[in-house]
Amino acid sequence: MAIPAETFFLPPGRELSLQQQIQQMVAEAIVGGRCLPGEKMPSSRRLAEHLGVARITVTSAYNELVANEYLVARSRSGFFVAETAPAAHSYPAPPVPSAAQADWSRLIGHRFSDADPPILRPGNWRDYRYPFIYGQSDGRLFDHRNWRACALRAVGRRDFDTLASDHYERDDPMLVEFILRHILPRRGIVARPSEILVTMGGQHALWMTAQILLTQRRKAVMENPCYPGLRQILAQNRCKTHMVDVDRLGLSPEAIPGDADVVFVTPSHHAPTNATMPLHRRQALLERAARDGFVVVEDDYEFEMALFTAPSPSLKSLDRSGSVIYLGSFSKSIFPGLRLGYMVAPEPMIREARALRTLVVRHPPSHVQRTTAYFLSLGHFDAQIARMIRVYRKRRRIMEQALAAHGLIAADQQNAGGSSFWLRAPEGVDSTDLAVRLRRDSVLIEPGGAFFAAGADPARYYRLAYSSIEADRIGEGIALLARGIRTMQQEQGGGPGAG
Amino acid sequence: MAIPAETFFLPPGRELSLQQQIQQMVAEAIVGGRCLPGEKMPSSRRLAEHLGVARITVTSAYNELVANEYLVARSRSGFFVAETAPAAHSYPAPPVPSAAQADWSRLIGHRFSDADPPILRPGNWRDYRYPFIYGQSDGRLFDHRNWRACALRAVGRRDFDTLASDHYERDDPMLVEFILRHILPRRGIVARPSEILVTMGGQHALWMTAQILLTQRRKAVMENPCYPGLRQILAQNRCKTHMVDVDRLGLSPEAIPGDADVVFVTPSHHAPTNATMPLHRRQALLERAARDGFVVVEDDYEFEMALFTAPSPSLKSLDRSGSVIYLGSFSKSIFPGLRLGYMVAPEPMIREARALRTLVVRHPPSHVQRTTAYFLSLGHFDAQIARMIRVYRKRRRIMEQALAAHGLIAADQQNAGGSSFWLRAPEGVDSTDLAVRLRRDSVLIEPGGAFFAAGADPARYYRLAYSSIEADRIGEGIALLARGIRTMQQEQGGGPGAG
Repeated sequence: MAIPAETFFLPPGRELSLQQQIQQMVAEAIVGGRCLPGEKMPSSRRLAEHLGVARITVTSAYNELVANEYLVARSRSGFFVAETAPAAHSYPAPPVPSAAQADWSRLIGHRFSDADPPILRPGNWRDYRYPFIYGQSDGRLFDHRNWRACALRAVGRRDFDTLASDHYERDDPMLVEFILRHILPRRGIVARPSEILVTMGGQHALWMTAQILLTQRRKAVMENPCYPGLRQILAQNRCKTHMVDVDRLGLSPEAIPGDADVVFVTPSHHAPTNATMPLHRRQALLERAARDGFVVVEDDYEFEMALFTAPSPSLKSLDRSGSVIYLGSFSKSIFPGLRLGYMVAPEPMIREARALRTLVVRHPPSHVQRTTAYFLSLGHFDAQIARMIRVYRKRRRIMEQALAAHGLIAADQQNAGGSSFWLRAPEGVDSTDLAVRLRRDSVLIEPGGAFFAAGADPARYYRLAYSSIEADRIGEGIALLARGIRTMQQEQGGGPGAG
Repeated sequence: MAIPAETFFLPPGRELSLQQQIQQMVAEAIVGGRCLPGEKMPSSRRLAEHLGVARITVTSAYNELVANEYLVARSRSGFFVAETAPAAHSYPAPPVPSAAQADWSRLIGHRFSDADPPILRPGNWRDYRYPFIYGQSDGRLFDHRNWRACALRAVGRRDFDTLASDHYERDDPMLVEFILRHILPRRGIVARPSEILVTMGGQHALWMTAQILLTQRRKAVMENPCYPGLRQILAQNRCKTHMVDVDRLGLSPEAIPGDADVVFVTPSHHAPTNATMPLHRRQALLERAARDGFVVVEDDYEFEMALFTAPSPSLKSLDRSGSVIYLGSFSKSIFPGLRLGYMVAPEPMIREARALRTLVVRHPPSHVQRTTAYFLSLGHFDAQIARMIRVYRKRRRIMEQALAAHGLIAADQQNAGGSSFWLRAPEGVDSTDLAVRLRRDSVLIEPGGAFFAAGADPARYYRLAYSSIEADRIGEGIALLARGIRTMQQEQGGGPGAG
């Protein structure tokens, strides 16, 4: 007597094939104890009828379940739940809470959630028609076919056993070698394997740097405006902080206080204004670092996006006193969900960072490192960057024309590329209000408030990125933006101009 | 006039196919500036001769390079370096260090490298014939075929765009759902999505727990001996610590001091002795937690390896006062290089842990989460655990017989499974010396010193795991171990017995 087919229901989609849904359904029934070892499964014909699928689909699922030892096949009599099937356990009932509940507001010793800024980037940004959104990958530009081939190779038999092991504090030597031999030389950086550490993206590298270098008595200098992730890191660190307002050339070395211990800087494209620091400032900054004995943390998160000229030489390549920590990231050039970047620094610093990384997460997952190593070493990465630069150039030109046509002026034009514009709305227009209003028109912009220190927010800046929006939607999107600004001005009784 | 074939040399192996080596060689020559846009490549026939490979291999590599826009093909005249090829940059020469070098011993504010214990597990443990090594996956037991299929699906077009995005603080909903619906119920735990966080393995979860709950004024209680990773975390944290010696039933609740704030415990299989905490102690521990107001951190790192009975109910399932943080890991059940685990705790705790994780690493890489979600939801995980349990049971019985035959006695037999034995060497035999000596015989054991508090190391304990050694090598390996012990005793003029 077989288990009735009627007791089976396909689980909700979850992006699986029909065969896999059936596999999952049967596996769950066995593990959950609804089908017991030795019981006979419904015939494939019967179950296929009940579920409304082809019989071959059920047969394939059954055969897969035999291979996985959930079922056994007996010739002429059908499929049975295997005696070796993963056993069902009897579960205790969920506990009834006692009257005296633990007081977590007292138990928590350090709070981290206070630092969370409001997230103004919706998770479903892909559903918006005009996503001027920063820092997400564009699926249309990404070389998905070759990435997939590299991922496949990294989970292949040859690599698998090595990669599956716990690597403690070690990095993938193939990835390290490629970064040292091919990426760093483009930034003029010559480094040894003991001077580099693979990180879980740029955020992780910044966090480790702050943990190792800063104490409550030391002073960190940051740009204003500044990447909000860094601001949160320094707030949690409890070190002293000093903010330097950036100008059209980025951070001014003269504005750095004499007692600085660590200076965080984004010279290739200042985040978020995109200002590119000129060579004379770079040299002045390094002279100050050598003289005053501070560390420079060079966050080179997007150097590849030098759209019109070669990237300016990195601070690290000009550094003669060994004062620079260089941070690179694959978040913009590959994709952010990858969580991969690297830190280049003098050996004593890398030793501490490696120990800290081991303490906190051990190492970035090995298959992620190896997939990236293949993608880089087979030349797909360089081809990808070249393609991104071509497309970004085109989008940027369209953006410039559209912005000019509507009288919208970028707040800073003194830059060598990047993937966004930094703009200022007219007097009286709050960019957060503007961002909220534009969502109704399916337009996403990023209000600038999160980049400024508390209290220093001029409320009028916003970022418009072109890394995720198609070229042929830019014109309409900018028109809607200009209309939104005009409407807000009119509502306030202001003039109709949008400049 | 084509670029001479003789200027090309295949790079060293790096586990690539010949075609890929050629691709890489040409891509590097272009990016490095040796081949310039417009230049003609050697004919495929000529290059194939020079490299000593089949012509089709060169042609395939060239065609792939065309697809990646490094080369263009012109009919009848051959392959040329594309004008769109990733550009070569001119690099500045590496800087000459100045006399005044930065003093990193002063610049570093917090040291983490001091905490590193000596690593006694060689990276090349696979080359040893008798690896009684703990915590590494066994490639022969792992369902590599299905893992690969799941990885492929997770990098497929349908999932790719979603997974490539920056997820900020979010987890993969598919993975979370499966853990909640299918893994936690086996431990008697009922939890909502707001009560779970995906972590980068167990180490990461322990580290976050300590960061959030402990301050310099608070007291952590740990087992002695204890997982060395936890000892390092608490040493870095600078909280007060109190160690409780475990007995054959694990941690004794009576031995916990009245002013404890956080108690770290491994009740399923105590690390490293494997003692399983009986139900009466679990209940007594929870009563103490509710009465004295401390948090219990239940590290259930290996609960799946209950070889002979169903896993004992988790502390979390018995907890009525909301005092337990439950930590699970896929390091032992899938593989450690994956870096994936989870934390289940009351909502206020998960909120802080999520904010801390976001601050430090953002999130575990999305494709890793999704691959695991598929592996779990298609039933491969349960099949894998069932297979591991069968094999471990067999290995364990062989171990028991071999140990008994040589008069070697496990220090604790009071347990429900795990993947190792905890042993004590005879009087006068130092287990670190023993481990070093056994390497000559290709035997790897793990000396127990790292598990004990400094000064408290009895120097005689060691761990013998059966998770990575083949059943038919166990007998020989144990015989070599027994011989090593006898030799050391004889050298010291001790008796010949090995008990």
